[in-house]
Amino acid sequence: MFSLSPIETTTMLEPTPPPSSPPPSTLKDEVDIVIPTIRNVDFLEKWRAFFEPYHLIIVQDGDPSKVIKVPQGFNYELYNRNDINRILGSKASCISIKDSACRCFGFLVSKKKYIFTIDDDCFVAKDPSGKDINALEQHIKNLATPSTPYFFNTLYDPYREGADFVRGYPFSLREGVPTAVSHGLWLNIADYDAPTHLVKPLDRNKRYVDAVMTIPRGALFPMSGMNLAFNRELIGPAMYFGLMGDSQPAGRYASMWAGWCVKVISDHLGIGVKTGVPYIWHSKASNAFLNLKRELKGIFWQEELIPFFQSVSLSKECDTAQKCYIELSKQVRDKLGKVDDYFNKLSDAMVTWIQCWDELNPPSSQSQSQVLSLSLPLHDDAAIILSNGSA
Amino acid sequence: MFSLSPIETTTMLEPTPPPSSPPPSTLKDEVDIVIPTIRNVDFLEKWRAFFEPYHLIIVQDGDPSKVIKVPQGFNYELYNRNDINRILGSKASCISIKDSACRCFGFLVSKKKYIFTIDDDCFVAKDPSGKDINALEQHIKNLATPSTPYFFNTLYDPYREGADFVRGYPFSLREGVPTAVSHGLWLNIADYDAPTHLVKPLDRNKRYVDAVMTIPRGALFPMSGMNLAFNRELIGPAMYFGLMGDSQPAGRYASMWAGWCVKVISDHLGIGVKTGVPYIWHSKASNAFLNLKRELKGIFWQEELIPFFQSVSLSKECDTAQKCYIELSKQVRDKLGKVDDYFNKLSDAMVTWIQCWDELNPPSSQSQSQVLSLSLPLHDDAAIILSNGSA
Repeated sequence: MFSLSPIETTTMLEPTPPPSSPPPSTLKDEVDIVIPTIRNVDFLEKWRAFFEPYHLIIVQDGDPSKVIKVPQGFNYELYNRNDINRILGSKASCISIKDSACRCFGFLVSKKKYIFTIDDDCFVAKDPSGKDINALEQHIKNLATPSTPYFFNTLYDPYREGADFVRGYPFSLREGVPTAVSHGLWLNIADYDAPTHLVKPLDRNKRYVDAVMTIPRGALFPMSGMNLAFNRELIGPAMYFGLMGDSQPAGRYASMWAGWCVKVISDHLGIGVKTGVPYIWHSKASNAFLNLKRELKGIFWQEELIPFFQSVSLSKECDTAQKCYIELSKQVRDKLGKVDDYFNKLSDAMVTWIQCWDELNPPSSQSQSQVLSLSLPLHDDAAIILSNGSA
Repeated sequence: MFSLSPIETTTMLEPTPPPSSPPPSTLKDEVDIVIPTIRNVDFLEKWRAFFEPYHLIIVQDGDPSKVIKVPQGFNYELYNRNDINRILGSKASCISIKDSACRCFGFLVSKKKYIFTIDDDCFVAKDPSGKDINALEQHIKNLATPSTPYFFNTLYDPYREGADFVRGYPFSLREGVPTAVSHGLWLNIADYDAPTHLVKPLDRNKRYVDAVMTIPRGALFPMSGMNLAFNRELIGPAMYFGLMGDSQPAGRYASMWAGWCVKVISDHLGIGVKTGVPYIWHSKASNAFLNLKRELKGIFWQEELIPFFQSVSLSKECDTAQKCYIELSKQVRDKLGKVDDYFNKLSDAMVTWIQCWDELNPPSSQSQSQVLSLSLPLHDDAAIILSNGSA
């Protein structure tokens, strides 16, 4: 097992026996689970049956001297701020500090086809029959089957077992398009904004909606990073969570920003975004008063961002997520720079992010599933070895 | 109780005791239930608890000499082909024969705010807890609460009990827009096309998805007329089911045609279309071989219709459903007339339909809830009395 090396805080544990129903070995080698955290990831105990066969990338936020404990038996890499700074050098400025937006560093260093990212206050939910929901498995099903962004199917995802296209669905559109994103939902504490949490402190999401669907082309949605999976090869370069948290004027809009960018780029590239199942159990709401402070600027800015994203048009030359993202960064500067200087900084950070992406993910690595060696000019420390992580 | 008069086959029965939980009297006076049928409507027995307080408009298809039996206790009007011909005169040509598309005659003659239309092979479904679903009540809830076509909410209809707008949903869009259509779904036999029924004869829809949502602006959907409700004041004039069935080259695309027209016009007018709950129990599939014959031309034409509807643009002057529909009829002639001469006929029928609508629903009647007297120049028989149907 190789990994970004040297990483001082990483502890690689011995493989443990597989769970009762192990995933196909090919799938195991195609998924990384990315977890941003500031605490011991004890929540993994609850996910052991589902996550243990997979490789985890833990992105430690906050004080890098703090030791994060990982339950025994999990196969993981762990990066703290020192690692991020060392690996990205001056370009580490594009990775947020003290905000779960730092998770996107894990997307950069993964070499897998699929990413599943989950927050450390999310637990295994139960379906209405009382059975534990294997969120990862459902996400991969969502991603491995096509999307249908060009026409709405009233029985939801037609590729799901027991479903199909209904009468009147054009036959020429039934092949669908590749799926880029699978956006999962939350039982118990929904992903509400601070004003909603303040006015409805007792609100709990109890409705299990047994559906997943493609969000139609042209429609924007509020993406949450709490329970999210995506095809890294298709949309990874656009899955940047922006500049949030420490020394930034905004917070809690990281996944929104990523979602708006991802959706307009997916629409442009002709790939799909699904939302719906799987659910996770979100255990606790963060402090609504604190959140209001963090969200404040975003609440106002958002009103200008939505019309911007609704009118974004990308040129034909943009035929990769990278090219789309660079062109989008220019439009962010041109159209949003006047809203606040923050968006000029963000535009720069978007470019830096793509530089990091391209350097850590050179074209030759896109379709390979073997161990890769490559020099990283991003920092002076050493050439590092990237791996596809077969255990 | 007044009704279109004289209607020889109509049997008005005495009021029966209200069901255990009667609807608010205001609502009772705002809803008509429209049922197209060729047989005795015994299926109403199963709906008695829910439909008995409401007024029914039964549109008898096929042989007008056949007497359709209606279970005792229901408040209804019944129109057969002779009635349609007498009331609409030469304009009756716009109402289909031997196709459930004839249901739209019921929309013309209603004076209510809301229409719920249902097929006679649809029964009361049960929710996962085993409780009978009051489809009409849920439709009215859907219609009485706003829609959100400009931004997708990942927890579905935010106005539903137990739901809300999620983090990142722009606050300026949370007022929503008026809802024009509530499209309900089907358990057991789904509304599949003939090819799907042929290849999956045993397929049954068993998934109860506890959601209703707004179909985003710009997205088309396949609308089924089997379990459908709409706000007649907002979108009634666009709810035309086209020329289908007897002496027409197409069948089984009536509700699709209506759905595509309704959606582009709703998008233009800034009103919403919802789909999802309520479910009904669809008891039996019609003959798939026969359906294939009826659908055949539609299967091919549809591939040209969808790009047409996706690119329809209506002028600013079109500020009512009528004006939109007339402008759309011109575009149908201009763009689809070359696909098949049928669309020239259909374009004419669309204009005829609006003439019927305007004559049966003059502007003065739009906002009135009182009994109206008006002369119908459509036929020579007599002036007829229209009613808002307070029992």
